[in-house]
Amino acid sequence: MQNFTYHNPTEIIFGQGTISAIAARVPLTVPVLLLYGGGSIKRNGVYGQVKAALKDHPALHEFGGVEANPLFETCMAAVALVREKKIRFILAVGGGSVLDAAKFIAAAADHVGDPWEIPLTHGRALQSALPLGAVLTLPATGSEANGNSVISRRATREKLAFYSPLVYPVFSVLDPATTFSLPVKQVRNGIIDSFMHVMEQYLTYPAQAPLQDRFAEGVVQTLVEVAPRALAVTDDYESRATFMWSATLALNSLIGSGVPQDWSTHMIGHELTAFYGLDHAETLAVVLPGVWRHQFDKKKAKLEQYGRRVWGAESASAAIERTEEWLLSLGAPVRLSAYGIDAKEAAEKIRARFAERGTKLGEHGDITPDDVAEILLSRN
Amino acid sequence: MQNFTYHNPTEIIFGQGTISAIAARVPLTVPVLLLYGGGSIKRNGVYGQVKAALKDHPALHEFGGVEANPLFETCMAAVALVREKKIRFILAVGGGSVLDAAKFIAAAADHVGDPWEIPLTHGRALQSALPLGAVLTLPATGSEANGNSVISRRATREKLAFYSPLVYPVFSVLDPATTFSLPVKQVRNGIIDSFMHVMEQYLTYPAQAPLQDRFAEGVVQTLVEVAPRALAVTDDYESRATFMWSATLALNSLIGSGVPQDWSTHMIGHELTAFYGLDHAETLAVVLPGVWRHQFDKKKAKLEQYGRRVWGAESASAAIERTEEWLLSLGAPVRLSAYGIDAKEAAEKIRARFAERGTKLGEHGDITPDDVAEILLSRN
Repeated sequence: MQNFTYHNPTEIIFGQGTISAIAARVPLTVPVLLLYGGGSIKRNGVYGQVKAALKDHPALHEFGGVEANPLFETCMAAVALVREKKIRFILAVGGGSVLDAAKFIAAAADHVGDPWEIPLTHGRALQSALPLGAVLTLPATGSEANGNSVISRRATREKLAFYSPLVYPVFSVLDPATTFSLPVKQVRNGIIDSFMHVMEQYLTYPAQAPLQDRFAEGVVQTLVEVAPRALAVTDDYESRATFMWSATLALNSLIGSGVPQDWSTHMIGHELTAFYGLDHAETLAVVLPGVWRHQFDKKKAKLEQYGRRVWGAESASAAIERTEEWLLSLGAPVRLSAYGIDAKEAAEKIRARFAERGTKLGEHGDITPDDVAEILLSRN
Repeated sequence: MQNFTYHNPTEIIFGQGTISAIAARVPLTVPVLLLYGGGSIKRNGVYGQVKAALKDHPALHEFGGVEANPLFETCMAAVALVREKKIRFILAVGGGSVLDAAKFIAAAADHVGDPWEIPLTHGRALQSALPLGAVLTLPATGSEANGNSVISRRATREKLAFYSPLVYPVFSVLDPATTFSLPVKQVRNGIIDSFMHVMEQYLTYPAQAPLQDRFAEGVVQTLVEVAPRALAVTDDYESRATFMWSATLALNSLIGSGVPQDWSTHMIGHELTAFYGLDHAETLAVVLPGVWRHQFDKKKAKLEQYGRRVWGAESASAAIERTEEWLLSLGAPVRLSAYGIDAKEAAEKIRARFAERGTKLGEHGDITPDDVAEILLSRN
């Protein structure tokens, strides 16, 4: 096991009817920004519950319209409002995109210098951030209980992740009933996202961390078991609750503590979203099997363990095949051609971008831009 | 899944050579109490590492001699020192007993009224507590990352547990190398303690919490797998690291979030320690199979799941038998007679005490004092 520090101070309030708990947690003494997305929270009643809980707040400002893959440009408009109104607490209500935007806004609010350097330095440039809380309505990113954020920039077609211990939410309310009104595709994407978060922290090489392995496998087994019902019965509280809690545990730093991590599937996937606009989960479903096959020898021992424990599969190859079958069963294509994307073009674009940045990927840091191009070509 | 709140703010610093990390975390601006036990930390070098890390602290006071099953009387002597020296931070260096004592001292320091009411009210009487940090040297109780403490009172032969969110350690340093010098029996006890902590939160009835089940089973599987090597090779870093992290995850509130809990084995075990002086783990090994057999019908579904997933056992009965065999293989007797304790006498003493307190136990709250007597009689 590697040495590690684990510190996750976010308070989770989980369960049906818990949104009112924000009343006791959002500070009344400072101006607050209520941040949300495209307005689905107004249709599903969540906005009403939040407003009711905060009806006595003397300085509640609103900023709506955060998009999927939240944009730097949008966030900076919110930062302007934060500065104008002297806002000192952000309440994010929505999915991972709203959460990620809230983190960037919280980070940029008091930042001296170009705020884009926050993601460019992966968060290292960050000195302070406003406190934030969340009401989560879409389980997927784990953003409700971690210090991660991913921000896109329209002008340059960039999508960059940053991490800072300063942007963990102070609290996050997780009411599984808020997911009942989600389009099924978003639930599907959230299940795939969560699965992929586990894999990036687990599917590397044996690292004498058997408990982390068991937890990672436990999240994946649970996601696989719960997916059919969570997708088929939109108002099934129990399966949505299980999915929601699994999504949080998939990326709250716990299973990744003390073990090597990969994240190449995410890094390549981010570029596919940046260039072609695919949903995040869609990119991951396409890329993951390619990374596994390209890195087959280095990942073989862990693929075997995963296949045996999760799928009852007899080989590393079978583990990859079972994973592809599972993704396809969820309606997620595993090939670029399914999206009409020319693999050669994608490979060249992304190779060039990684070469320019000097990016190397994988748990050994040895996946070169040329390797990335090979991986993408194999996903035609 | 039940509604729950999960909030574990303790920072874990885990790994070899990490004790020096306390230098950046123990506040220099207030008087600090260094609390420890019987002096083993002076023999194994931990005390030296702690003192070296804090060599520049201007007001470091020491209190040694905290015993196993820490006594109220001892803690109150430390509270007197805390008040005299105006101590505002406690650094506990040792195992669960030192941690538990630190929590009680932190809680009692500013408490108005009789401090014994803190455990008597299970912590509800607590209004504030001093902050504390820890260097853990004996994995077992999970006290390094929870708000639990168990304090005994010599005068009345009482052993009472309390919980408060105010006594989570601010940080805990876990260096598996500090366990190399432990007597093998203490490692054995720690493995059993951790196993039992999982069982109290897991072995109840199916509660539609499949992820919590998987995590609980993961801790148990890991403990079972790692136990032989952790016991046989005293300086094997990896097996001790796995055991240490498993012990923390066994009782840091995570696997118990959203599920029913039992704790009857612990409650009965505490009385066996209070009356007969058995080690905590020894009492649990004796009591658990009795609770399971007495509550067989109510626990049958979960026993079957546990047996199947952890032992490959084919029935609930086989799951109990495999557990008893495992405890015996660790050298832990599962019968009172092995300790020369008269089961009839123990049953009557503990029945009477629970009857006097009106105690009812178990996940349904329906295990009466008479049931407890039956359980103990069955453990002759």
